[in-house]
Amino acid sequence: MERIARMALLADFYGPLLTPKQRRIWDLHYEQDFSHVEIAESENISRQAVYDLLKRTEKILQGYEDKLGLIRRFQAEQAKLSEVARLMQEYEQKDFANDKAWERHQAISRKIEEIYQDI
Amino acid sequence: MERIARMALLADFYGPLLTPKQRRIWDLHYEQDFSHVEIAESENISRQAVYDLLKRTEKILQGYEDKLGLIRRFQAEQAKLSEVARLMQEYEQKDFANDKAWERHQAISRKIEEIYQDI
Repeated sequence: MERIARMALLADFYGPLLTPKQRRIWDLHYEQDFSHVEIAESENISRQAVYDLLKRTEKILQGYEDKLGLIRRFQAEQAKLSEVARLMQEYEQKDFANDKAWERHQAISRKIEEIYQDI
Repeated sequence: MERIARMALLADFYGPLLTPKQRRIWDLHYEQDFSHVEIAESENISRQAVYDLLKRTEKILQGYEDKLGLIRRFQAEQAKLSEVARLMQEYEQKDFANDKAWERHQAISRKIEEIYQDI
């Protein structure tokens, strides 16, 4: 997975376990795209301190995932749902006996898409 | 939710964050159904100590869920998937134009059941 997406997932799952300071600096960098220098200036700490704090925070978040594996679990679900969504979309109107059955199929297909996007 | 089921879910999600001792005593009680007295004897600690340790462990696990809400999130998924599984099962062979379309539908329906049971 792309690094930024992986960082976003880690914070989405385990961010509430960080201290307010870890969380704030993490968000400045990974959500609001502040550079290390910009964060150093706004927080009045050294650039090295920003770098160390981000590295340490990443290690903490990754440590939770290594122990709990909940991102891995969600992603496994997501892969299976994506496959189901694909199979549902292979249907065409002519596969059904009538319009009502086809419309119900499309409604279920949309529901699956919604679940898939929620995860 | 029933208390024992809730305890099992908490340990399933957040158990790896417990200390080995917390985990062991938790499993003895909630998985292997040992009484407080039996655990006190096997661990050579007081019955009160067993009680306190179990209470404290429950508080720790519930604290993770209060912060992260991942059980809530999984259960919301599960409810939606259950609804989709139900809608899929409302179909009958006569809703489809041919046997092949019906068999594909049943195969997708089974896949959804599998995902639902995995969660």
